Amino acid sequence: MSDMLAELMSALPGAVLTGADGTEPYRRDRALDPDAGVPLAVVLPRSTAEVQTAVRWAARHHVPIVPRGAGTGLSGGATAVHGGLVLSTERMRDVTIDTATRMAIVQPGLLNAELKAAAADAGLWYPPDPASFEICSIGGNIATNAGGLCCVKYGVTADYVLSLEVVLADGRAVRLGRPLIKDVAGLSLTSLFVGSEGTLGIVTEITLRLLPTPPPTRWVVAWFDSSDDAARAIAEIACTVRPSVLEYMDRIAINAVEDRLHLGLDRGAAALVLAGCDDVDPQRDLNAMQAVLERHDPSSVHQPPQADGDAIAYARRLAIPAVEDKGRLLLADVGVSIPRLAELIGGVEEIAARNDVTIAFIAHAGDGNTHPLVVFDPADVDEAARAEHAYGELMTLAIGLGGTITGEHGVGKLKRPWLADQVGHDALDLGQRIKTALDPDGILNPGTIFEDDHS
Amino acid sequence: MSDMLAELMSALPGAVLTGADGTEPYRRDRALDPDAGVPLAVVLPRSTAEVQTAVRWAARHHVPIVPRGAGTGLSGGATAVHGGLVLSTERMRDVTIDTATRMAIVQPGLLNAELKAAAADAGLWYPPDPASFEICSIGGNIATNAGGLCCVKYGVTADYVLSLEVVLADGRAVRLGRPLIKDVAGLSLTSLFVGSEGTLGIVTEITLRLLPTPPPTRWVVAWFDSSDDAARAIAEIACTVRPSVLEYMDRIAINAVEDRLHLGLDRGAAALVLAGCDDVDPQRDLNAMQAVLERHDPSSVHQPPQADGDAIAYARRLAIPAVEDKGRLLLADVGVSIPRLAELIGGVEEIAARNDVTIAFIAHAGDGNTHPLVVFDPADVDEAARAEHAYGELMTLAIGLGGTITGEHGVGKLKRPWLADQVGHDALDLGQRIKTALDPDGILNPGTIFEDDHS
Ligand SMILES: Cc1cc2nc3c(=O)[nH]c(=O)nc-3n(C[C@H](O)[C@H](O)[C@H](O)COP(=O)(O)OP(=O)(O)OC[C@H]3O[C@@H](n4cnc5c(N)ncnc54)[C@H](O)[C@@H]3O)c2cc1C
Ligand SMILES: Cc1cc2nc3c(=O)[nH]c(=O)nc-3n(C[C@H](O)[C@H](O)[C@H](O)COP(=O)(O)OP(=O)(O)OC[C@H]3O[C@@H](n4cnc5c(N)ncnc54)[C@H](O)[C@@H]3O)c2cc1C
Repeated sequence: MSDMLAELMSALPGAVLTGADGTEPYRRDRALDPDAGVPLAVVLPRSTAEVQTAVRWAARHHVPIVPRGAGTGLSGGATAVHGGLVLSTERMRDVTIDTATRMAIVQPGLLNAELKAAAADAGLWYPPDPASFEICSIGGNIATNAGGLCCVKYGVTADYVLSLEVVLADGRAVRLGRPLIKDVAGLSLTSLFVGSEGTLGIVTEITLRLLPTPPPTRWVVAWFDSSDDAARAIAEIACTVRPSVLEYMDRIAINAVEDRLHLGLDRGAAALVLAGCDDVDPQRDLNAMQAVLERHDPSSVHQPPQADGDAIAYARRLAIPAVEDKGRLLLADVGVSIPRLAELIGGVEEIAARNDVTIAFIAHAGDGNTHPLVVFDPADVDEAARAEHAYGELMTLAIGLGGTITGEHGVGKLKRPWLADQVGHDALDLGQRIKTALDPDGILNPGTIFEDDHS
Repeated sequence: MSDMLAELMSALPGAVLTGADGTEPYRRDRALDPDAGVPLAVVLPRSTAEVQTAVRWAARHHVPIVPRGAGTGLSGGATAVHGGLVLSTERMRDVTIDTATRMAIVQPGLLNAELKAAAADAGLWYPPDPASFEICSIGGNIATNAGGLCCVKYGVTADYVLSLEVVLADGRAVRLGRPLIKDVAGLSLTSLFVGSEGTLGIVTEITLRLLPTPPPTRWVVAWFDSSDDAARAIAEIACTVRPSVLEYMDRIAINAVEDRLHLGLDRGAAALVLAGCDDVDPQRDLNAMQAVLERHDPSSVHQPPQADGDAIAYARRLAIPAVEDKGRLLLADVGVSIPRLAELIGGVEEIAARNDVTIAFIAHAGDGNTHPLVVFDPADVDEAARAEHAYGELMTLAIGLGGTITGEHGVGKLKRPWLADQVGHDALDLGQRIKTALDPDGILNPGTIFEDDHS
């Protein structure tokens, strides 16, 4: 073992994994990048001080660090870098709820579902709900500014972050913001770090705003023979009602979840729209949404019994793993403004046909954030190449529609080649200047968002 | 006239004011800084291109630029710098409303009230409502991340900004973000520029999210003999109900507005609490708030007829100008977490007594953001000095309570001396590194937030 590694292990006893057995489970996130690097070591700090120790060591030896939460990311943001450190927050899971201020103070490794449970025990609610909420960490949610189903009404992760503690590239721990609802003292550094995907610092503590628990969501479900009709109905709902959930699944996704769950979903439908309302008195908005859906030629619309609606919501959450049963996925996260949803769906269908690949389509439709899932057999080299090609075309399509290559999963390492096409050279340069100012040696998650100068 | 100035005037014909007559009206914002500089010139661009021309000229000649909206700022952020340029956006007032996407595209000089009116014409609503909404610009709101009365339920300016066009220190115009509800492509540069008080760039176009118009706010009004009781009632409301307005005025403010408006307010009360609810069916929450208020020993509580409640809300909005009738103001903007409101109010009373000055106290109490207004006679040198001293103590008090020196008005030039005490050296240094990366010559609003290296 090298001197360098021995130094790290003695500085962080019991918190360093090495060798193939130790590091293999930490090489990839859920993007399953086949080109993931082999890290030198994995560190599992328990405290901010231990994170600082690891970062100082890395800074001294110019070793890149990849921060890692629960590894459910879909953009390769937590893909290991060759010869680098993976810093996993899995042992940092403390949580404190303050009911008087309606806030939670959490360590980054806490799972989203664990925070939701702790808040619920105190009669409170943490809204952001990525479909992966049972398996992803709050630190990962902060780093990607995660979205989810309830965002159409309740906003994204950024809307709940009041204050952060971050460890910078030089090992200093800095507190950004204070646990206050309103505070404009100095630049909005907290907001800058949210969504920075581990490229500016490592998040070691988070203060989050909680809300009172709303009533359970009540549902309207509509089935369509035409995806176009479904998309137009969604656009009309989005600009006239304020749903708490507004989701979309296409035929391929419907069939994949039906294969798993056997709920009796309509396998022949082109699209399913699931709309929810959690107001105290939801009937007015449920009826309004039903009326809009009825105007767009559905094959059926109804307000199901609570349990049936909940089951369909569960099915929607399961869509990604269910489609994963059918093959390897390239998971896009493209977004458009809602009136352009129909055009996006049409464009995705063309891309699937042109490249002769299967693309399932699910969406947090109410905020224009969609997930075309390119399904392929990794053993079929030709199909894999066509899938790759289609994946790129999806991003070009979204950019051309005035949209985004990533609505909630982050740029990571996988989408970086398309970033300049979206944001333009000047905005990229602006970001790069900030990155260089905060991490001059480029040790924090190189290759994510920004090009890795050393590679 | 200097060659330099002639060059500017020929590059921007009809858009440059010089001489005392031209520049005097642009030297100060509403903080009325007696030490405001005498600018070289004022430019009044009509377009992004004209802003770029002015900035390029300033960059070439190393002339500092102070961006200015409507000059209603209360922190000296728009105070002119000696020998610099004031760039006023007053001629940039275009607005376009897109009902299909519920968005507004506006130039920065548009007044907040003008945007509200344009949105209302389209059946939509722009929530952020600083008490100054009839006289302040959207650009100023973006630059300060302005708050207001409805923020307790609807959030601050930042929550509505989707995309910005900014002119950087080198004259480049850059678009940040896209007009999308969800977009995480690259660093959150839009969020960084919101609240940056003109120190990172000049905002030249803004894309804002609009909401459907909610029902009119219905009111509960409570009068208290003890400010302590009022503060405790507020803290309990804030953690159990979700009001759309939750405001506070003390006896001095009540009397000042009563002198102007003659509404028959209770001049003897120690405190007035105004709570509002704009739900479709507000009665449940209005009753819940009334019940909480009744538990805290008020002298009276009632749900007034709509017009009476609206009149008290108007009185609350008028509080700052009404107290200004009584003397010159030093206007603090300190915030604490809501359970500490009672301690803050107690501390403010002590500061007033200790320094023998009058301090009126009004607050956006529901989010812990308060405005102690130090009133003094500028002709009384000794009182002015005591007022200055009290103003500083207010900030030290807030910092000591875990709070902020500025909840919504910004640091500007006036509060800069206290910023380090609040955020700490490391966070200050982090901000400074970003400032230097984006504006290496320090020409953008020097002395605001960051120290002016040249002065
Ligand atoms: C089935 C499934 C469904 C999903 N549904 C959604 C959804 O609805 N909405 C959504 O937004 N996402 C969704 N995701 C994606 C993923 O769950 C989110 O991106 C999540 O936020 C990642 O959290 P994580 O803890 O797994 O982070 P990781 O994958 O470990 O890391 C993600 C990124 O964050 C960085 N990071 C992690 N922790 C820290 C830290 N403490 N400090 C600094 N940087 C850090 C990493 O470097 C990496 O760049 C889904 C994923 C799956 C597998
Ligand atoms: C009676 C009264 C009540 C008020 N109530 C509230 C309230 O409830 N909530 C609240 O938040 N504020 C309140 N304010 C303060 C003030 O109105 C706000 O700070 C407002 O946002 C300032 O807007 P402005 O157009 O007047 O900006 P200015 O005063 O002209 O400028 C403010 C700051 O923004 C910068 N700036 C302006 N335009 C741009 C631009 N286009 N690009 C970059 N930087 C720019 C300036 O350099 C300066 O730093 C109140 C003020 C008054 C007088």
